[in-house]
Amino acid sequence: MMQSAGKRLVSRVALRGARHSIAKSATQLSAKPLALAKAVPSARSVHTTAPALQVKQTAEWYRTETRGDYARLSEADIEHFKTILPENGLVTDVEDIEMFNTDWMRKFRGQTQLVLKPTSAEQVSKILSYCNDKKLAVVPQGGNTGLVGGSVPLYDEIILSLSNMNKVRSFDNVSGILVADAGVILEAADMYLAEQGFMFPLDLGAKGSCHIGGNVATNAGGLRLLRYGSLHGSVLGLEVVLANGKVVNMLSKLRKDNTGYDLKQLFIGSEGTLGVITAVSILCPQRPAAKNVAYLAVESYEKVQQAFIAAKKDLGEILSAFELMDGRSQGWVQQHCDLTRPVDTESPFFILIETAGSNKEHDDAKLEAFLEDVMEQEIVCDGVVASDETQFQNLWAWRERITEVIGKEGGVYKYDISIPLPQLYNIVDDLRAVFESKDMISKTDASKPVVDVIGYGHVGDGNLHLNIMTREYSERISQVLEPWIYEWVSKVHGSISAEHGLGLIKKHFIQYSKDEDNVYLMKQLKNAYDPNHILNPYKYI
Amino acid sequence: MMQSAGKRLVSRVALRGARHSIAKSATQLSAKPLALAKAVPSARSVHTTAPALQVKQTAEWYRTETRGDYARLSEADIEHFKTILPENGLVTDVEDIEMFNTDWMRKFRGQTQLVLKPTSAEQVSKILSYCNDKKLAVVPQGGNTGLVGGSVPLYDEIILSLSNMNKVRSFDNVSGILVADAGVILEAADMYLAEQGFMFPLDLGAKGSCHIGGNVATNAGGLRLLRYGSLHGSVLGLEVVLANGKVVNMLSKLRKDNTGYDLKQLFIGSEGTLGVITAVSILCPQRPAAKNVAYLAVESYEKVQQAFIAAKKDLGEILSAFELMDGRSQGWVQQHCDLTRPVDTESPFFILIETAGSNKEHDDAKLEAFLEDVMEQEIVCDGVVASDETQFQNLWAWRERITEVIGKEGGVYKYDISIPLPQLYNIVDDLRAVFESKDMISKTDASKPVVDVIGYGHVGDGNLHLNIMTREYSERISQVLEPWIYEWVSKVHGSISAEHGLGLIKKHFIQYSKDEDNVYLMKQLKNAYDPNHILNPYKYI
Ligand SMILES: Cc1cc2nc3c(=O)[nH]c(=O)nc-3n(C[C@H](O)[C@H](O)[C@H](O)COP(=O)(O)OP(=O)(O)OC[C@H]3O[C@@H](n4cnc5c(N)ncnc54)[C@H](O)[C@@H]3O)c2cc1C
Ligand SMILES: Cc1cc2nc3c(=O)[nH]c(=O)nc-3n(C[C@H](O)[C@H](O)[C@H](O)COP(=O)(O)OP(=O)(O)OC[C@H]3O[C@@H](n4cnc5c(N)ncnc54)[C@H](O)[C@@H]3O)c2cc1C
Repeated sequence: MMQSAGKRLVSRVALRGARHSIAKSATQLSAKPLALAKAVPSARSVHTTAPALQVKQTAEWYRTETRGDYARLSEADIEHFKTILPENGLVTDVEDIEMFNTDWMRKFRGQTQLVLKPTSAEQVSKILSYCNDKKLAVVPQGGNTGLVGGSVPLYDEIILSLSNMNKVRSFDNVSGILVADAGVILEAADMYLAEQGFMFPLDLGAKGSCHIGGNVATNAGGLRLLRYGSLHGSVLGLEVVLANGKVVNMLSKLRKDNTGYDLKQLFIGSEGTLGVITAVSILCPQRPAAKNVAYLAVESYEKVQQAFIAAKKDLGEILSAFELMDGRSQGWVQQHCDLTRPVDTESPFFILIETAGSNKEHDDAKLEAFLEDVMEQEIVCDGVVASDETQFQNLWAWRERITEVIGKEGGVYKYDISIPLPQLYNIVDDLRAVFESKDMISKTDASKPVVDVIGYGHVGDGNLHLNIMTREYSERISQVLEPWIYEWVSKVHGSISAEHGLGLIKKHFIQYSKDEDNVYLMKQLKNAYDPNHILNPYKYI
Repeated sequence: MMQSAGKRLVSRVALRGARHSIAKSATQLSAKPLALAKAVPSARSVHTTAPALQVKQTAEWYRTETRGDYARLSEADIEHFKTILPENGLVTDVEDIEMFNTDWMRKFRGQTQLVLKPTSAEQVSKILSYCNDKKLAVVPQGGNTGLVGGSVPLYDEIILSLSNMNKVRSFDNVSGILVADAGVILEAADMYLAEQGFMFPLDLGAKGSCHIGGNVATNAGGLRLLRYGSLHGSVLGLEVVLANGKVVNMLSKLRKDNTGYDLKQLFIGSEGTLGVITAVSILCPQRPAAKNVAYLAVESYEKVQQAFIAAKKDLGEILSAFELMDGRSQGWVQQHCDLTRPVDTESPFFILIETAGSNKEHDDAKLEAFLEDVMEQEIVCDGVVASDETQFQNLWAWRERITEVIGKEGGVYKYDISIPLPQLYNIVDDLRAVFESKDMISKTDASKPVVDVIGYGHVGDGNLHLNIMTREYSERISQVLEPWIYEWVSKVHGSISAEHGLGLIKKHFIQYSKDEDNVYLMKQLKNAYDPNHILNPYKYI
C-alpha cells in the first residue's frame, strides 16, 4: 500500500502518532531521576522477580572453572579493610550482600562474603595492594547490569563496588569535557550535562543503574553509537588503579595528545581484568535541540539496506539511530502489550529511524525529503512519524519492549553479534531453517521445543540481537545453537559479542572471533598488568 | 565596525569572497591527483630547496643517542633480502637512497644503505623475522612527511618503505568501511572514496604524500578532527607485523566487537616502534553535499571562546572546522603574499569556520543565524563568507599559508601543543613577555634575535601551533624556549605534542606530559613487543 504516496505518509503522521498511548515500558529503567552525589540505588531496583537467594549459585551449574589458588577471606583481612574504609564502606551482612552477589538477569550468583565500597582512588589503591600481597581475588563492580556474568563473583572473590565514588570532578562548558568518578550513574551524568546543554555520548536501556565506569569497562555501545561513535573515540582519559595498587593517572582533559602509547585504550572494554577504573574524562556533545522518530515498514532485507543508504544520504549528519525489528518481533510486542500497530501493513521488516539536530525546521525538512525518497523508490511501503515526546516514546516502545515480551513464552537464548551488513539478517533465516529441518519449531504446537527465532538490533552498526524463544531451556536446543551460531559468525568474520563483552559465559568462545595470535597477545598483557590474576578471575580470557 | 549589521555581513559576502584570487599556496601539496595503484610519488615532490645531500647528517649534531649494539648490514644480508623481494624492491644506489634518508623538513638525515619495498605482509614478515634474528635495526617509513624526525634513520638503520603496498582491498558502500594497504596515499584514498560519495575521515596538509598507514602510526589529527573525531574511534582494524615477523590479523570490518582487549589501539600513534602496520580498516563518513567557510575578526581571546560556544550551538552538527589565527600571523601572510585582507578590520584574532552538511540551503540558513547571533552580541566585529570552491580556497589560504610565510624572516621554532581551551592563547602572550623582558624581540630592529611570536591552530581541539620567528637559530633563543615552554604546558596539564608525536626530537621531553608510571608502562609494552628493540630505535621512549 501507499507505494506512490510519499507525501501522504508524511502528512498523516501526527494523527498516527497521537493515536497510541503506550503504557510505560518495563525496559524503561531510567524514568526515575537520580541525585548525582547521593549513594546510588543499585541495579536491584530493576529486579521485579524472586529474591536473590532463590537464584542458583553459578558454581553449582557452571563447572568449567575450578576455584583458583587464592587465599580465603579471614577475620584479620576484614579488620585490615576497616582501617582503610569508613564503617559503611564494608558490607558483610548475608542479606545485604546478596544483591551484589547476584547479577541483573538473575542468572549468575556468587558467594562473596565481603563487599568493599571505597570513596577514593587512594582507598582503592590500599585495598588492591593488600589483596595483591595476600592473593585475595577481587571483582570490580559498577551498576551490576552486565549481561555476561562478569560483574559478580564465581566463588568467594571480594566485590569492590564503585558505587560510593559518584562525584562529578569537573566540567568545561566550552570544550564539553566532563571528568567524573567511575561510580556516577550514567543517567545522573546525563542529567547533570543536560542542565548545561550537553549530553553523555552514550545511551542504553540500563542507564538508570549502570555506572559510567562500568560503561567504559565494558566498552558499551548502546543506541546512538551510529551518531556519537565508540568510547574509544570519546573517552579522553582514565584514572586506573592497577592490581598492585599503583594509581595510574591517565586522566587527560585534552582532545589531542600524541605523547606515547595510548594506554588508557587497553582499559576500555577490559571488563575489570586489567585494573579498576576510578575516574573517566570524556568529550560530551551538545544536546540536540530537535528530535524526530519514524517507524517504517520494509518488504525485504535488501530494501532495509537501501533505506540505510538513503538515510545516510538524505539525513546525513542528523541521523542518530537506525534500528531494525523483524516482523515476528513486532508480532510478539503486539500480542503481549495490547498495542495498536503504528502501521497497518504486515511486513517482514520494520525500521526505526531517529534524527537529532540543532534546528527543528531543517530536521523536519530532511526527514520529509527522505520519506518521499524511500516511498517513491518503493523502498518503504508504509510508515509513521512521531514529533512530540510522547509519540516519540510510543514508537521507541516497539523497539525497546522486544526484550521484555519475548521472555513471556518461556526461555530465551540471546546472542549479541556483529555481522557485516549485507549478511546481517541471513543468520536468522538460516537458524530457523535448521530448527525446521529438525522439526523442532512451531509457534502453536506445544510439543516442539522452539517457539520462534527473531532478529532485531542496531543495523546501522552491523549489530544483531539474535533471540531464540523456547518453551524450555534444554540440552537439545543448546546443542543446535552452539557452536552452530559461533561458526556461522566466524565464517563471515563477525563478532560473537558485539557489545556485551566476554565475562564468564563467552570466555571459552573467544577463538571464534579472535585467532591464537590475538589471544596470545591478550594473555601476555593480562600477565603483565595482573601477574597474580587477582582481578576478576575465571572471566574474559 | 559593523557591530549592528549582522545581515550586511552575510549579504556582502559573495562580493568580498570574489575579490580575492590567491595564488596557489605552497602548502597545497595535494593539488595533483595521484593514481591509486601506481607507485607513489615520494614526499620529495614537496621539497623545493637544496638537494638531500646538503642536509647535515643528524648524527653529526644530535648527540643525545649513541649507536646501539645492532648488527651492520652485510652483503649476505642484501643477498638474503633479494630472495624475499623482487628486484625493484631493494634500493641501494647512493643517490636514490638519499630521499629516503632525509626528512620532509630537510632537518634530519640518516645514513641507511638499504631501503626495502615489500609488496605484501608476508614479505614484511620475512624481512622483520630476519632482521630480528640478526639484530638489524629497521625504520618503518610511510610518506616521510612526519615532523619530529621519526621517519628517517639516525644511524644506518634499514628503511622499510610501505610505498609499494598501495592497493585498496575492499570497500563496502553501505557501511562505508574501507580496507586498504598501509601504503595508500591519503589523497588517493580520499579520491577513491569520493567516487562512491564517501570521504576519508582525516584531512591534512601533507595528504598528497603521507600514507594512511603513516597517519595511523602517528595518530594524525588534521583539520577536521573536530567533526570526524580521532582515529582511535574511526579505525576499526589493523594488520600489523610484529618485530619477530608474526603477522597479527586485527583487520576487523566491524563497528562493534567486544571480544577481548582492543589491541589495535596500541599501534595507533606508536610511530613504528611496536610493529609495522600493513593494512588499515576504517569507517568513512558520507561526503558532505554542501560546504561553507567564514572568516571573522574577533577582538579578544575571551570572545574567540564565546564564538566557539555560539558556533557549537548554532551550527551544531555541521561545524567541521574552527581555526584560530592571531592578528600577527595574518599580518605576515599579508606582507609576504601580497593579498587583500578578507576584512578591513585590524584585529588581534581571526577565526575561520567551516561547515559541512548534507543540505546547502539548511547549512546557509544555520550559518546566517550564527553570524547574526555573534554580530548582534558583538562577539565578532567583521567577517566574510565564501560559498564557492574558489572563495573557499581563498579564505583557507589565510590559515594554510601561515606555515610558509613565517619562515621567510629567518628560522622558526615550532611547537605543537595542546592546552585547555580557557588558557590556550595565554602562552603566546607570556612567551612574548619573556622575550620583551630580556629585550630580545623586535619586528624591525635587526640586532634583536627574535622577530615575532605567533599563535594559531585548531581551537576546536584545544591545539595551538606556537611559532617563534627568529633572525637566526641560536643557543640563546633555545635556552629561553626550553624547558620554559614545556614547563608552562605541563603546569596546565597540556600536551607537549598534540599531533606531531615524539619521534626523535621530543623523546626526551615526554615527562612533561606523562608521569613516571605512564612511561614505565610504555617501556614495559615496548619490551614485550620488541624485546630486541629493532623497530625505530633511538625514538619515542
Ligand atoms: C536493560 C539493559 C540494557 C542494556 N543495553 C546495552 C546496550 O544497549 N549496549 C551495551 O553495550 N550494553 C548494554 N547492556 C549491558 C552493559 O554491559 C551494561 O549495562 C553496562 O555497560 C555495564 O555497566 P555497569 O556499571 O552495570 O557494570 P557492571 O555490570 O557492574 O560490570 C560489568 C563489567 O565491568 C567491570 N567493571 C565495572 N565497573 C568497573 C570499574 N569501575 N573498573 C573496572 N571494571 C569495572 C565488571 O568487573 C564487569 O566485568 C545492557 C544491560 C541491561 C541490563
Ligand atoms: C605539510 C604538512 C602538514 C601536516 N599536517 C598535519 C596535521 O594537520 N595533523 C597531523 O597530525 N600531522 C600533520 N603533519 C605530520 C603528520 O605526522 C604526517 O604528515 C603524517 O601523518 C605522517 O604520515 P607519513 O606516511 O608521511 O609517515 P612518515 O613520516 O613516513 O612516518 C611517521 C612515523 O610513523 C612511522 N610509520 C609510518 N608508516 C608506518 C607503518 N606503515 N607502520 C608502522 N610505522 C609507520 C614512522 O616510522 C615514523 O615514526 C603534517 C606534515 C606536513 C609535512
